[in-house]
Amino acid sequence: MAPKAKMIYFPFHGLGEPLRFMMAYTNVEWEEEIISVEDFPAKKPSYPFGKLPVLEMDGLRMHQSAAILRYLARKAGGTLYGQNEFEALQCDIAYDTITDLRVMMLGYFYEPNKASADEKRKEVLENLAPMYLRNLEKLVNENGGYFVGGQLTWVDIAYGSLIDYLSHMAGKELVADKPALKALRDRVFALPAIKKYVETRVKYPY
Amino acid sequence: MAPKAKMIYFPFHGLGEPLRFMMAYTNVEWEEEIISVEDFPAKKPSYPFGKLPVLEMDGLRMHQSAAILRYLARKAGGTLYGQNEFEALQCDIAYDTITDLRVMMLGYFYEPNKASADEKRKEVLENLAPMYLRNLEKLVNENGGYFVGGQLTWVDIAYGSLIDYLSHMAGKELVADKPALKALRDRVFALPAIKKYVETRVKYPY
Repeated sequence: MAPKAKMIYFPFHGLGEPLRFMMAYTNVEWEEEIISVEDFPAKKPSYPFGKLPVLEMDGLRMHQSAAILRYLARKAGGTLYGQNEFEALQCDIAYDTITDLRVMMLGYFYEPNKASADEKRKEVLENLAPMYLRNLEKLVNENGGYFVGGQLTWVDIAYGSLIDYLSHMAGKELVADKPALKALRDRVFALPAIKKYVETRVKYPY
Repeated sequence: MAPKAKMIYFPFHGLGEPLRFMMAYTNVEWEEEIISVEDFPAKKPSYPFGKLPVLEMDGLRMHQSAAILRYLARKAGGTLYGQNEFEALQCDIAYDTITDLRVMMLGYFYEPNKASADEKRKEVLENLAPMYLRNLEKLVNENGGYFVGGQLTWVDIAYGSLIDYLSHMAGKELVADKPALKALRDRVFALPAIKKYVETRVKYPY
């Protein structure tokens, strides 16, 4: 039996949750090593480029969460990374676009200067995020309720794991008025392996 | 004969150059549509999520430059995306790490508030960039002069196309004291297809 994977991350769902959802869905067993915000500075130099999450698996110490998601998708095989190179491209485009939205939101969420944070927050929540969500909703509508090719890929799973975190940063449910995105989130949460994981996971504020 | 690809971007090397290097290396013929900074606002809504570069190719209108690089690498085949899923993972990790470094530098380069830009610039150039470059130098040393697996992948080509742009944003040659990274940059520029492209390309300030 392969040794358990080890997930090293903060006590948040955050960027750890896409990896956890993908491991749950692809039947990877893992254990958690939770690093408190207080302990992180002392341990930071021991992580690749000083960052978390790190996933230890298959004898590798992996960093860069999007790279790890792609690895888990390739490893699971089937159509989880799309059915061909065109769909693999669409997966990569969709996920990197969701990342752009997330990074914009981080831009105000972690901005220490209040005036600057308020200004960035207003621009993102009033202009940029609505444009992103409108276009992502259209994409999911055009693809039969999924991001790519009318069936489940790693991007749907990662999106499902992230949308509540994005809503937390927005201070409101971002997909309340986006029926296709909302249904996709619910569809991911209804996948038996995800449902089982979510029922037993530690609940963090975000 | 397949119709020529069309590259739509600003009059900069910037994030267009990795795509141009990869197209040159993988024998994709393309034409350029250059959008001036003045014309961009009026045209912005016509691009996916309002962003450039866009590459029209194979009947697709592609955005997200990293996704396009991965597509070009998969399409070219061979070992350009590594020899197996482990090397594909290492390619993805290395490129996303270079992107983190680039995004940090954009953080001060395009910051309109001078005091804030100076503070960010100091933190990036004195602490973060040196740590990134030190670790990337180590990675290239450990992999026989390349980022992954001792032979050329799409990440080396993309890195070669970006490092002068990063140096421009730093105001100094970033790899002057990093022999492995410097040699890799020069090795990419010496690839016959890249050499030919660089000799005839339009020169932009960055």
